Amino acid sequence: MSSTIKDVAKRANVSIATVSRIVNNQTGYSEKTKKKVLEAIEELGYQPNAVARGLINRRTHTIGVLFPKLSSTFVTDLLSGIEKATHEAGSSLIVCHTESNGEKTMKYLQLLNEKRIDGIIFTSAPLIDEYYQYISKMNVPLVLLSTESYAYNVPYVKVNDRHAAYTATQYLIKQGHKDIGMISGNKDDLIAGRPRIDGFISALQDHNLPYDEQKIVTNQGFSFSDGLGSLKTLLDQSPDITAIFAASDELAMGAISAAYQLGIKVPDELSIIGYDNLSIAEMAIPPLTSVAQPLTEMGEVAANMLFEILNHDKVVKSRIMPHQIKERNSVKERK
Amino acid sequence: MSSTIKDVAKRANVSIATVSRIVNNQTGYSEKTKKKVLEAIEELGYQPNAVARGLINRRTHTIGVLFPKLSSTFVTDLLSGIEKATHEAGSSLIVCHTESNGEKTMKYLQLLNEKRIDGIIFTSAPLIDEYYQYISKMNVPLVLLSTESYAYNVPYVKVNDRHAAYTATQYLIKQGHKDIGMISGNKDDLIAGRPRIDGFISALQDHNLPYDEQKIVTNQGFSFSDGLGSLKTLLDQSPDITAIFAASDELAMGAISAAYQLGIKVPDELSIIGYDNLSIAEMAIPPLTSVAQPLTEMGEVAANMLFEILNHDKVVKSRIMPHQIKERNSVKERK
Repeated sequence: MSSTIKDVAKRANVSIATVSRIVNNQTGYSEKTKKKVLEAIEELGYQPNAVARGLINRRTHTIGVLFPKLSSTFVTDLLSGIEKATHEAGSSLIVCHTESNGEKTMKYLQLLNEKRIDGIIFTSAPLIDEYYQYISKMNVPLVLLSTESYAYNVPYVKVNDRHAAYTATQYLIKQGHKDIGMISGNKDDLIAGRPRIDGFISALQDHNLPYDEQKIVTNQGFSFSDGLGSLKTLLDQSPDITAIFAASDELAMGAISAAYQLGIKVPDELSIIGYDNLSIAEMAIPPLTSVAQPLTEMGEVAANMLFEILNHDKVVKSRIMPHQIKERNSVKERK
Repeated sequence: MSSTIKDVAKRANVSIATVSRIVNNQTGYSEKTKKKVLEAIEELGYQPNAVARGLINRRTHTIGVLFPKLSSTFVTDLLSGIEKATHEAGSSLIVCHTESNGEKTMKYLQLLNEKRIDGIIFTSAPLIDEYYQYISKMNVPLVLLSTESYAYNVPYVKVNDRHAAYTATQYLIKQGHKDIGMISGNKDDLIAGRPRIDGFISALQDHNLPYDEQKIVTNQGFSFSDGLGSLKTLLDQSPDITAIFAASDELAMGAISAAYQLGIKVPDELSIIGYDNLSIAEMAIPPLTSVAQPLTEMGEVAANMLFEILNHDKVVKSRIMPHQIKERNSVKERK
């Protein structure tokens, strides 16, 4: 007769509950105990059943992805790439929508832990200490997508926001604009807020163009309604600007809609460049020129990175994805 | 000593492999055999471990959702509602992106079967026989979202497309338009294509307004680029129209962009109403008047319907969600 969980517990000199916890990948035992129990399982040839065996040897072929906000085409584009790579790898995807809410995020991490997912892609939000500690305890690989961590050494996939903002501003300068404003997201956001502001200012300074604080309007977020409200404020502060760098496509589209309401012609009287190159950029009137982030590809790269860690247990390198200007019709050359 | 899988096999007079298949919810045994084995398990108090026990008594608390296309805000809005209800129910969501591809769909259904998901939400595509047969064999509840089946008795959540198209057309008529055209999706699509055309024609007929085939341009799909290409064709066929019913917001936004390129002013020279009320509708210039489908709510209702079947094992009723006109600025009254 084959061995039972009792035999394993006896041989390892631990309780049945401890063996069960270890077999079921739960927490609450030392590494030393785990080693002793796995040795006993090995020696006795304990095979409770195929499923339990799977828990020891195999993966669940499920990965978890955390998004701050689902109702944006930014996320759809990333998700579409993650989904493609995940299914190509024969795995499936559990999608968690955190709404940038700490409590919700922790709840989802617990859920992913219970599901024994193989790994996590954490997207487009700051990786705070509480999340990082919990994920470390889960002992699954983690990849950051469209975000990065200064505090922890976690592989990430993103564009260089500072460089991309510089490129956008430089594009406006090359089109002959000398008085340029910016509609920004949250200036205290160290991932997507501050770096884009810094890139904008650097570009102006490198080209000896005037800069003062009145050239920038900051917002809580990067949404259409933020952009809609920002244009008038910016033009009140800096009436002479001829071009605007908006730190997201939604901000840019909000600014274009506000210009339409104010009777300002884009691009004839005011040029606007966006950031992201979402699928909605081509739907703008005029179609929006934007700094392209290759979002779908970024999603694919992040998922593939996770599978590389899972399949080959190797240290992966973070990836800075190339950005580029996607020219449409919202910027006009100024002679 | 507790019983083993061998004891169960012996008592039920079947092979160990058969017991394993039954415990692991795999296929390849008769209902009679299953009954015999479950009885033996009961009698012997066989408890291989917590996980295997879970497989017999519990659910996996994971549901699968199939989407034809991820890169649209239509899907994001639905997904956001499904995700909310699913997580509130303590379950998680496996997202499958079929690209309207039969082979891919079957592969994902197999994957969901292997994951032993509790139920399926099938979204916005025709439920063909092959899918239905496979899902029936999986023996999990199925809810259709933004689609319906004529052939099978499957609960669904959607608006009445024919009524909603009628309402949109009637709205244009009430604004004084008498010569109205339509930009349609695929006329052979019996879920979202044909019914909207029928609703459009019914509204014209009920108001004694002229209709002929030249008033409609049909497309392969419902996308922005379809709409972009359709406006000129429609105006060539029917130069006198003053208003257009577009069968999706993306079609409408494509038409608005085409009008902009042609120098036609919306809504002053041409009124356009969309269908869906996606989050992008407010970003249009001018902001798009549209027939609102309550997409996020529809996603929630579909997921809750699935949990109702799962938790109470009861027959649920299909739900026709209310549609309504969301007035913005793309339709002008004609006096």
